Amino acid sequence: MKAAVFREPHKPLTIEDVEIDNPKSHEVLVRTAAVGVCHSDLHYIDGFYPTPVPAVLGHESAGIVEKVGSEVTYVKPGDHVITCLSVFCGHCEFCTTGRPYSCGNPETARSDEEPSRLMQNGAEMHQFYDLSSLAEQMLIHEHALVKIREDMPLDRAALIGCAVTTGFGAVINTASIEVGSTVCVIGCGGVGLSAVNGAAIAGAGRIIAVDINGTKLNIAKHFGATDVVDASQCDPVEAVKELTGGGVEYSFEALGLKKTSEQAFQMLRRSGVATIIGMVPVGEMLEIHGADLLGDKRLQGSDMGSNRFRVDMPRYVDFYLNGKLKLDDMISRRIALEDINEAFDEMKRGEIARSVVVFE
Amino acid sequence: MKAAVFREPHKPLTIEDVEIDNPKSHEVLVRTAAVGVCHSDLHYIDGFYPTPVPAVLGHESAGIVEKVGSEVTYVKPGDHVITCLSVFCGHCEFCTTGRPYSCGNPETARSDEEPSRLMQNGAEMHQFYDLSSLAEQMLIHEHALVKIREDMPLDRAALIGCAVTTGFGAVINTASIEVGSTVCVIGCGGVGLSAVNGAAIAGAGRIIAVDINGTKLNIAKHFGATDVVDASQCDPVEAVKELTGGGVEYSFEALGLKKTSEQAFQMLRRSGVATIIGMVPVGEMLEIHGADLLGDKRLQGSDMGSNRFRVDMPRYVDFYLNGKLKLDDMISRRIALEDINEAFDEMKRGEIARSVVVFE
Repeated sequence: MKAAVFREPHKPLTIEDVEIDNPKSHEVLVRTAAVGVCHSDLHYIDGFYPTPVPAVLGHESAGIVEKVGSEVTYVKPGDHVITCLSVFCGHCEFCTTGRPYSCGNPETARSDEEPSRLMQNGAEMHQFYDLSSLAEQMLIHEHALVKIREDMPLDRAALIGCAVTTGFGAVINTASIEVGSTVCVIGCGGVGLSAVNGAAIAGAGRIIAVDINGTKLNIAKHFGATDVVDASQCDPVEAVKELTGGGVEYSFEALGLKKTSEQAFQMLRRSGVATIIGMVPVGEMLEIHGADLLGDKRLQGSDMGSNRFRVDMPRYVDFYLNGKLKLDDMISRRIALEDINEAFDEMKRGEIARSVVVFE
Repeated sequence: MKAAVFREPHKPLTIEDVEIDNPKSHEVLVRTAAVGVCHSDLHYIDGFYPTPVPAVLGHESAGIVEKVGSEVTYVKPGDHVITCLSVFCGHCEFCTTGRPYSCGNPETARSDEEPSRLMQNGAEMHQFYDLSSLAEQMLIHEHALVKIREDMPLDRAALIGCAVTTGFGAVINTASIEVGSTVCVIGCGGVGLSAVNGAAIAGAGRIIAVDINGTKLNIAKHFGATDVVDASQCDPVEAVKELTGGGVEYSFEALGLKKTSEQAFQMLRRSGVATIIGMVPVGEMLEIHGADLLGDKRLQGSDMGSNRFRVDMPRYVDFYLNGKLKLDDMISRRIALEDINEAFDEMKRGEIARSVVVFE
C-alpha cells in the first residue's frame, strides 16, 4: 500500500510503498477513507517529540473495516469507524473507573519491543500511535476504533479522531464547564475551534476566542465565539480580564506553547481552571506564580479530551448530523496523500484551520 | 490591651499596649482565648509577603464574644467563636455559588484606605487579615466568625481557625479525595498533620507523610499516615512512586516551598491531582514539565481549604469531640504572649508541630 513515510526530522515526508500485516486475533484492518492533517504530526516532524524512524505518521482518521481478527466481535467488514489515539484495555484501574483515555496497559498498547506490523523490503517501519493513518490501510486494535453511523461522511468523521475529541472533550469532560460560565480559547486551529464549538453546545455564557490570525477569528465567531481577541494587536491576558471584569472561569490552550499556556493560567479569575490541550514540547517548562495558587486556581492537562471514546465519539457524530457541530467549516481543503507536505507548510504559516487527506 | 506588634521584617515582635475601637454595626469585639502560632505569620516576619507596618499579627484564634455591633444577630456576648481568615459578603458571585472562601467583596473586607480599628497614641496600627489575633481582644466582622459548641476547649478550637481549616479543607473540599484513594502529604506541621488527619477521616486507602524530621513523621503516623518518607534520606518523589507503583492519586504540599510544590506535581500518577496548600512566597515561580500535563494531571491552589466556614468549622469541632480529629496531639506547647518570639524560633528550627498562645 501507499503511505507517507517520515524518515528524519525537518525533512518532507516521502510517499512510498509499505507492506501491512494481517490482523492478529484482536486487530482490525481498516481501509483509510480520510485523514486530518494535525499539528501534532508536525510536532514530530519538527523534532519536538521523539519517535522511532522510519515511521508512517497520521492519527486523525476514519475508514471502513476490511478484515477482522479471529476474536473481534465489535466490528465486521463494511463497518464505518473512527480511529482513536489510545487503546483501552477495559480492565485496569483507569478503564474500570471511567478513564479509558488514561489506560496505559501494555497488554493492548503495542510495545516498542514487539515487531512492527508495517514493513518495507524486510525492514520494520514504526507504526505511529499504533495507527499510522497517512496510508491506504491501517492495522488497529479493536479497542482503538469506534463504530459510527453510516450516514456520517467519513472526511468529517476523521476530524473527530483527534481535533474534536481533544478540543470538545477538554471542555465537556476534562473541565466540565458549567452552563453560563465564561470561557476563553487560545488558538483557533482544529482543536481550538472544536473547543469553541463544544463550549457553545455546552451552553457557555461567553466564549472569547484568541488568535493572531483574523481569518481564524472570523471562523471562530461562526463556531460560537461571542468575543474575539487578536493577540497580535494587544496583550490577550489584559484584554480577557477587561472583557470579563477580572478574568474567565475556564481557559483552554490549544497550541501547546509555553507562553500561551502561561497566559491561560494568568487570565483566570479566582477559582478559575486553565486546561492545557496543546502538546507542550518535551523538556519545556511552564512557569506560574506560586502565589497565584492562593486564589484557588487550577492548571490541568487534558489527555485526549478525557474521552470515553466509544461513548463520546458517536455523540459528536450526532451533533454534526444535527447541525450543531460545524465540521463542514473546519475543513479548509481536501487534498491527496501526495500533497501532504504542502499541507504542513500551510499549517506552519497558520493559514488554514484543517486540511484533510482524502483517499479515492 | 496588650498585643504583639510587628514593626519591621526580621525583627522580634514587641509586646505593647494597643487601643482597640468599639464595634461598628456589623462588627464583634472578641476576647481572645487562644492563638495558634502559624507558619504564615512567619512568612510575613521574614518579609516573603508584604504587609503594612506597624501591625498586630496572628490569625489562628478562638475566643469569647464581649460586645456586638447594632446590626449583629448571629452572635451575642458570651458566645464561643472561631475566627476566619476571610470575610464573606454573602451576596457576590462566589458566595452565592458556594465559594465564600473566594469572596473578595470590598464591602466586607476592610480596605487599606479605611482608618484602622487599632491605634496607638493616635497613630494607626494595621489589622492583619482583619483579625490581629496576637492581642487580648479582636474586632472582627460578624462574617469572619463561626459560633461553636461551648464544650469545645478554646485552645484546640483556635487551631481550627487556620491549620485544620486549611489542611483538612484542602483534602475534603479542594481536592475532594475519594474513599480508598492514595494520598501523599508533604510537610507535617499543623497544616500537613491536619491534611493527614483529614485524609484518614475521609477514608483514604493509603496516606504517605513526607517530612525531614523524624519526630514529626512519628506524630503523622498517630494522625493516620500509613507510610512515612524521610525526605532528608532519599528523593521523596522516587520513594512515593515506588511505594505506590507509579505515583499517588492526590498529593498535598503544606510548606509553601517551590521545590516541594514541584515535587507534589512530579509524584502524581496519571490523572493525579496536586494541591498546593502552603503559601509560596510572592514572586516565586513554580516550574512544571509541560509534557507532564498530557497525563491529565492537575496542579491546583487551595484558598483556605476552600472552606464554607460556617458549615465546615462546626464539623471539625464535632470530629474533635468524637475523638477523630487529633488536636490534643497537635499542640506541642502552650505559651504566654510574651514567649511568642521563642515560638517562632522553634518553628524555624522545625522542632515542633504547633505552639499555642493562651490568654489567662
